[in-house]
Amino acid sequence: MSEPEISWSGWGDPAKAAPLPEKITALLRDLLGVKPRETPPVALADIVPPAPRLTPAALAALADVAEVRTDAESRVRHTGGKSTPDLLAIRRGDTTHTPDAVVLPADHNAVVRVLELATAHRFAVVPFGGGTSVVGGLAPDASGFDGFVALDLRRLNRLLAVDPVSRTATFEPGVRGPRAEELLAGHGFTLGHFPQSFEWATIGGFAAARSSGQSSAGYGRFDELVVALTVATPTGTLTLGRAQKSAAGPDLRQLVLGSEGAFGVITSVTVRVRPVPEAKTYEGWTFPDFATGSAALRRIIQDGPVPTVLRLSDETETLVNLAQSGAIGDGGASGCLAIVGFEGEEREAAERRVRVREILAESGGTSVGTAPGEGWAHGRFAAPYLRDSLLDVGAFVETLETTTFWSAIPALYEAVRDALPGHVVMCHISHVYASSASLYFTIVTPAIDWDTAKPAVNAAIIGAGGSISHHHGVGTDHRAAFAEEIGPLGVEILRAVKERLDPAGILNPGVLVP
Amino acid sequence: MSEPEISWSGWGDPAKAAPLPEKITALLRDLLGVKPRETPPVALADIVPPAPRLTPAALAALADVAEVRTDAESRVRHTGGKSTPDLLAIRRGDTTHTPDAVVLPADHNAVVRVLELATAHRFAVVPFGGGTSVVGGLAPDASGFDGFVALDLRRLNRLLAVDPVSRTATFEPGVRGPRAEELLAGHGFTLGHFPQSFEWATIGGFAAARSSGQSSAGYGRFDELVVALTVATPTGTLTLGRAQKSAAGPDLRQLVLGSEGAFGVITSVTVRVRPVPEAKTYEGWTFPDFATGSAALRRIIQDGPVPTVLRLSDETETLVNLAQSGAIGDGGASGCLAIVGFEGEEREAAERRVRVREILAESGGTSVGTAPGEGWAHGRFAAPYLRDSLLDVGAFVETLETTTFWSAIPALYEAVRDALPGHVVMCHISHVYASSASLYFTIVTPAIDWDTAKPAVNAAIIGAGGSISHHHGVGTDHRAAFAEEIGPLGVEILRAVKERLDPAGILNPGVLVP
Repeated sequence: MSEPEISWSGWGDPAKAAPLPEKITALLRDLLGVKPRETPPVALADIVPPAPRLTPAALAALADVAEVRTDAESRVRHTGGKSTPDLLAIRRGDTTHTPDAVVLPADHNAVVRVLELATAHRFAVVPFGGGTSVVGGLAPDASGFDGFVALDLRRLNRLLAVDPVSRTATFEPGVRGPRAEELLAGHGFTLGHFPQSFEWATIGGFAAARSSGQSSAGYGRFDELVVALTVATPTGTLTLGRAQKSAAGPDLRQLVLGSEGAFGVITSVTVRVRPVPEAKTYEGWTFPDFATGSAALRRIIQDGPVPTVLRLSDETETLVNLAQSGAIGDGGASGCLAIVGFEGEEREAAERRVRVREILAESGGTSVGTAPGEGWAHGRFAAPYLRDSLLDVGAFVETLETTTFWSAIPALYEAVRDALPGHVVMCHISHVYASSASLYFTIVTPAIDWDTAKPAVNAAIIGAGGSISHHHGVGTDHRAAFAEEIGPLGVEILRAVKERLDPAGILNPGVLVP
Repeated sequence: MSEPEISWSGWGDPAKAAPLPEKITALLRDLLGVKPRETPPVALADIVPPAPRLTPAALAALADVAEVRTDAESRVRHTGGKSTPDLLAIRRGDTTHTPDAVVLPADHNAVVRVLELATAHRFAVVPFGGGTSVVGGLAPDASGFDGFVALDLRRLNRLLAVDPVSRTATFEPGVRGPRAEELLAGHGFTLGHFPQSFEWATIGGFAAARSSGQSSAGYGRFDELVVALTVATPTGTLTLGRAQKSAAGPDLRQLVLGSEGAFGVITSVTVRVRPVPEAKTYEGWTFPDFATGSAALRRIIQDGPVPTVLRLSDETETLVNLAQSGAIGDGGASGCLAIVGFEGEEREAAERRVRVREILAESGGTSVGTAPGEGWAHGRFAAPYLRDSLLDVGAFVETLETTTFWSAIPALYEAVRDALPGHVVMCHISHVYASSASLYFTIVTPAIDWDTAKPAVNAAIIGAGGSISHHHGVGTDHRAAFAEEIGPLGVEILRAVKERLDPAGILNPGVLVP
């Protein structure tokens, strides 16, 4: 348990906080009119949450089955997630979403007992993995309860089993990304799941939020990697998955994946693993415009062979990234930059690369060498640190994402941009599939009324036929839009499952289920 | 609507019925001691089902919204499915599972109306596509109802849309496999879904039963091909799927796929399609034993590249197939035969084939040329005709299948064989995945008490950690074992969904949901 704690008021390891480079400050000033000013958070020690609402009987009963923390710092550190509104709130000292206690069970049975106690004592439970939700997944509506607890799963941190023949590994949910890779490396395996939250998020969180990593083109989304699950619910334990694929009825695993802690607490996850790749190469390609680049990505994912990493920035994001890296002004710096990566067995990865390069060139791409690729790989988990620094100087930065079928991508792209007029909106295609793709947007602006803008973007996405999230999830921020996406009967299905598994509604009230 | 009717007492097109070759008769006599005798079905005209139990009011109301048939032949032709017990029952004239009427709606709205009428008039509804269930999926328990109707979806037979950019096509559910391919070929596409039931089963049935085709290694299982669905339920219409993959909560499509008509009636399915392949090659490889061959298949599916077709017969199945083809006695005819197929763009398929052949040879395989592959491809849909002929002469033939993780495959294989002592049990690996594989068994025997043997096999599968079905589904035959597989809480989830969508329980009572 010597892993560092994530920053309470920003992203990641406070020791790695990156002050804003002068070129970014200049860009903000010149391009956006942001007037840099210091907006530091209130001091952690100055945040005093209200007294815990849990009854003394509930607290005493909890202490019998798990470690319980009620000190202010522990509670503040489990407040909300890492969306920009979450960060701005905690920086103001807002304790609206501060749990009344932090509960740390040691194993599956302790989780089961906590859920029983919650039902009996009427307090709500918010499963807490890495705490990296960016969609209000840690902002429960506990108004009908005698308080709520953050159920921190960090003590469930073991690799339970490795099956080298079937190439699977079973983890407890509290294992963070890097630790999972470290444990698997001892067996010669990798999970290959590298979302931007990789360094802090957990195996259980990846499953509960239906995560998708930056190398998902090669390794698969997390929902494609999971083959078995154990879930503790208020009405008992669910054990699912006797094979990767089966025709034994509906695939109930897919009901747990994406359930965001509203149906139960995932206490073990069996995932597919692969040999640690011999070779890793990342390179850059430019395209004259987003449409040409998109068509190239589509051709590759539809006809293959498929790279391990495949992403494409639009013109604005390409320009901003170039400015950030100091490369702006070089000849040929316009257009759209794609990052294309190859991981795997030496010979196979090299052959695949040759063929993909042929297709990219045929599709209007120009190779710009490995430097942009290596640069991307080096900084792939750093963007949230940059956001912190931008928030520090008073800018507003947030990301959002969506997905739809390829034929509808251009209209969805325009719809989201049109819903954010007057702001710098960057976009990249972050994930591609044979029939669809995701669009990942970053907004940077001096000021915006996000409480108005966010619902407008949600409405634009739903109106354009998009899904409300490709990989961030639903949480509370997307709940209303999600209800529109799946329709009244889809909502009824979720409610029926919720009511059966969690009749008292103690799990993540207000999250996911409309 | 000029498509032929499937045989009422056996498989497929009666014009294609294959009398038993002399070499098979000899094999049965010498190997199994089957004494050929004629056991013809009773005459269709002699089967007189009891008078329809639907009330006159219900029948009159139905006639307002759909075509209704109550003649004996139509009812008999919608009796049960195509499992061996189903065929033996209807050949005896058993009308236990004969519907009281056959209802043929013309569109989605008519389906919705039929479900409303069923709820109001308390009759049960069995959605009917190709009628090819082999797991008792068409054997409802309608004892609590005023009869039941077969909801024949053949009139919902249109290709509604093709999206060449996203490579998707939207079908109504009643389109049979060959017709779907014909319609897609007009756009240069193929679905690539070729289960043994291909010629008779429907798009809606593929989705409802979570079908898997013989080319699924290359094209994907049907549940991987479906990107969107419309479902008519007694409480309204469900529309799902705004992208191939999304993180907008649980994937509710995966609750519909495999729901076997118990939650609703699928009225449209959007599937991924691919360009018609330029090249198709199928070839045979032999391995000294099943374990060596299994390891070769595992290596290929785990490390790639992946053929389009990949299957491996065990020693017994290889021997019987060789005997059937007249090749027995040739030198080197022992061991286990694998069929390996390559479909796709000319150059890519050829390159892939070269690499796969290298790996197969490295893994202990011996190439035996394209003849076994072409033979397999030619006869790939013919086995059920052979079963009819075997039943005709008094033998008992049935198939069953399961799936589990690779490391558990040897024990599962032995467990199933041990549960069927004294009979000829053939097996092949029909489908492979990175972490798991399926085992498909065929039993041929002079006589067996199947009512005792089938539950014993189910228990053996569940006891060995297998899933009760890889691609046949649950129906009524696997319902109890399925309940064990997903556990009491899994059952509760299905019941909760069922009760919410179908509060009167009119849809396929007794099928799927324990």
